[in-house]
Amino acid sequence: MENKQFFEAFNVENRIFDEISHEIGKIGYYELPDQNIDVISEFASNVTQKNIVVVGIGGSSLGTAAVYDFLRYKNNFEKKLFFCESTDPVLLNSTFKKLDLEDTLFIIISKSGSTIETISIFKYILSLVELNEKQFVIISDKGSSLHKLAHDKKLPYFEIPANVGGRFSVLSSVGLLPLAIIGVDIKMLLQGAKKIKESFFKQTQSYQDITHKASFYARNIGKYNINCLFSYSEAFRSFNDWYIQLWGESLGKKQYNSYLNVGLTPIGLIGPTDQHSFLQLIVEGKRDKSVTFIKVKDFDSILKIPNISIAYLENLDYVNEVDFSDLINKQADSIIESLLNKNDIPLDIIEIEKINEEAIGQLFFYFELLTSVVAKMINVNAYDQPGVEEGKKILRGYF
Amino acid sequence: MENKQFFEAFNVENRIFDEISHEIGKIGYYELPDQNIDVISEFASNVTQKNIVVVGIGGSSLGTAAVYDFLRYKNNFEKKLFFCESTDPVLLNSTFKKLDLEDTLFIIISKSGSTIETISIFKYILSLVELNEKQFVIISDKGSSLHKLAHDKKLPYFEIPANVGGRFSVLSSVGLLPLAIIGVDIKMLLQGAKKIKESFFKQTQSYQDITHKASFYARNIGKYNINCLFSYSEAFRSFNDWYIQLWGESLGKKQYNSYLNVGLTPIGLIGPTDQHSFLQLIVEGKRDKSVTFIKVKDFDSILKIPNISIAYLENLDYVNEVDFSDLINKQADSIIESLLNKNDIPLDIIEIEKINEEAIGQLFFYFELLTSVVAKMINVNAYDQPGVEEGKKILRGYF
Repeated sequence: MENKQFFEAFNVENRIFDEISHEIGKIGYYELPDQNIDVISEFASNVTQKNIVVVGIGGSSLGTAAVYDFLRYKNNFEKKLFFCESTDPVLLNSTFKKLDLEDTLFIIISKSGSTIETISIFKYILSLVELNEKQFVIISDKGSSLHKLAHDKKLPYFEIPANVGGRFSVLSSVGLLPLAIIGVDIKMLLQGAKKIKESFFKQTQSYQDITHKASFYARNIGKYNINCLFSYSEAFRSFNDWYIQLWGESLGKKQYNSYLNVGLTPIGLIGPTDQHSFLQLIVEGKRDKSVTFIKVKDFDSILKIPNISIAYLENLDYVNEVDFSDLINKQADSIIESLLNKNDIPLDIIEIEKINEEAIGQLFFYFELLTSVVAKMINVNAYDQPGVEEGKKILRGYF
Repeated sequence: MENKQFFEAFNVENRIFDEISHEIGKIGYYELPDQNIDVISEFASNVTQKNIVVVGIGGSSLGTAAVYDFLRYKNNFEKKLFFCESTDPVLLNSTFKKLDLEDTLFIIISKSGSTIETISIFKYILSLVELNEKQFVIISDKGSSLHKLAHDKKLPYFEIPANVGGRFSVLSSVGLLPLAIIGVDIKMLLQGAKKIKESFFKQTQSYQDITHKASFYARNIGKYNINCLFSYSEAFRSFNDWYIQLWGESLGKKQYNSYLNVGLTPIGLIGPTDQHSFLQLIVEGKRDKSVTFIKVKDFDSILKIPNISIAYLENLDYVNEVDFSDLINKQADSIIESLLNKNDIPLDIIEIEKINEEAIGQLFFYFELLTSVVAKMINVNAYDQPGVEEGKKILRGYF
C-alpha cells in the first residue's frame, strides 16, 4: 500500500518513537503479526459445521466483520458467518430464523468474560442448543468467568492476551479463529500487518507516513477535529466501522493530568455513494474536517459499461466501454482534485494493490499505529475506555 | 411519537414560521403528505415480478432503503428489493448474480435524468435485458432526458415534482412506488407525515418540539457542531443514513451574503452496538456533540432471556426472564441517564410507538421540517448542493 499525503512536512520528535518502542511487551498488539498460528489453523481445519456464529460485540466482532465484508464479494466462502451482537429482539429473531442450529458452531467472544449483551444472547442460545464441546468455542481473557466455564465443561478455549485491548484484537484469536474457519488466509493477513510493523519500527516509509500524518492531526486538533475516511468500494463498509471504533474510543478521552476533554471524531464514508450525501458538507461546510481517501489499484474484475447509446442521453456516451473499476477510481480522483482545489481541506490518499488478506492486514496495522502515535501526541491513554462504565452501573441498578 | 428535550427553552421569533408558511407551493415536500396516491397504488398492484431493483443513488434510494430496512425484520415481504447505486464492480457483480433477470422489474430513478452512476448501470442492464415496457419504469423530472426516453419507448413514467429536492423526495413517487410494489402501506406512511405536518403548521406540539430544538442547534452552532442520532434498534440503520444525507447536504453550505462556510455534522449510531464504539468519545471527548436518542416503545415481540444460570456468571442472572426489548430499552435509558449526569452534553429523546409505516412517516417529516427550520436560522439554502458540481465537471474532463 502507498500513502500519499498533502500535508506540510513537520519534524517529529524522537520522543514518540522511543516511547512506543519501549512499550513492546507491554502493549500486546505490536506482537500479534509475529505470533504462531498453528493451533488456530489446525482447529479451524477440523470444523465441520456450515454456519459459524460469532457472539460478541464491539472489539469482539468489528474486526472480523471488516475482513469478512472486505473479502466476501470476491471470495466464495463455503461457510456462512453470522454476527450476534445486539440485544435488539427484531434482529435476533431474524438471525436465528436463518440458522440450521444442528449445523452451527457458536464462538462466544468476550474479553472480560461478562459482557451483558454477549452473555444474554449466550443464554438464549443455550435454551435452543445444549452446551457441548462440538458446537461451542470460548474466546476470552485468561482467568475470566468464561474461561473457567470452558475449563469445567471441556469446551475449546482460545486466549485473548491480557495486554491486547478489544479494539486492537482483530489479529489475535478474536479475529483469526472465526476467519480461519471460514477460509480466510490468516497467514497473509498477518504478513500484511508485519510489513507495516517492520517498516514502522525500522523507521522507514510507514514510520514517515504515520508520524507525519499523526503530527498534522495532533497539531491541528483545535481546528480539524473530524477525520473522514472516504473509502472507494463497498468492500470497505465494515472496515469503516472498525476504524470508527478504533479512532473514537481510543482518542476520545480526558487528557492525562488535565481536566480537558479531547478527541478526534471519526466519520466513515463510501464512494461514490456518499458523493451524493456527505460530500456537500465537506466541500462547503465548516472547515473542521480532514479526509483520507482509500482506493483500490486493481479491482481484479472486468465489468465494462457496454457500448450502448441511450436516446436523449448520448452526452453520457463518454463512459461507454469504460470498466466500472476505472470509473469508480476516476470518480475518486475527481473528488480528490476538487477538494485539493479548495486549498483548505487537509487530505491524503491510501492506495492498496488489491482486495485481499494482505491489504487489509496492512490497513489494520497502519491505523492501529496511527492511533497509538496520535494518542501519545495529544497525551491520552489509547487503551482504556473509562467513559462507558457509568452506563453499565446504572443499567445494573435498574434490575 | 413523542420528543422529550433537555435543552433550555427559548422564544423563537415568528419570522421563521412566517417564512416557512409562505414557502408552501414553492417548496414541494410540504405538500407530499396530501397527495393522491391512486395511480401509484394501482400500478403497484399490477406488478407481477418477484425482484424489484431500484437503480438510483443518494436521494433516489436512501429514503426507500430507510423504510425497507425499517420494516423488513418484521414484515415478510413477498417481493425482494435490491438497490443498484454504486459503480463499484465487486458489488454490481454480486447483486446481478442473485437476480433472475426475467422475473425482475427495474425502476430507474434520477431527478436530473442524467446521473452518471445511474445511467452507467442502466446501460449495463440494457446489455442483459432489452428495454421493454413490462420490465422498466422511469421516475424523473418532467422534461428530463429520461422522461423523453420513457415517452418515446412508451415506458411507464412517474414524475418527481420539480420543487421537491432529491433528499426530500422519499414521500414522492421516488419512495412510494417501489415501496407500494413490495407491499408497504404507503397510505399509513403519508398519514404519519401528515400528523407532524398538521401539528407543525397549527403551531401545536411538533411546532414547539422542532423550533425549540432547531433554535438550540442554531444558537450553539459554534460549540455543538456535531449532531449524533443514536437509534436503539437495528431497524434504524438505513434511516440513519437517510438522516446523514438530509442533514449534511442541506446544512453544509456557504451562508447567504457571506463568505462563511457553515454546517452541522450528522453522525448515525445504533444502540446498543455503538455503546461499544462511539460512546466513549461522546462521554469523555470534546464537548462538541449533541445526541438525539430514538427509542421504540413497543417492539411487538416477545423474546425472553431464558431462566438459565451459567456457571461462574451467576452475577448476571439479573437479566433472566427479562424480555430483550426491555433490556435494549433499559440500555438506552442507562446511557441517557449517564449522559444527563454530565450536565454538558445536550440531548433529547424521540420515542415512537411501534416499528410501522406511520412511525417512520412521522420521523421523515419531523427531520425534514427540523432541517428546513435550522437552515432558516443559520441563513443557508437547504435545497441546493452546489459543492458537488465541480467534481462532476472534473470527472467529465478525464474522459
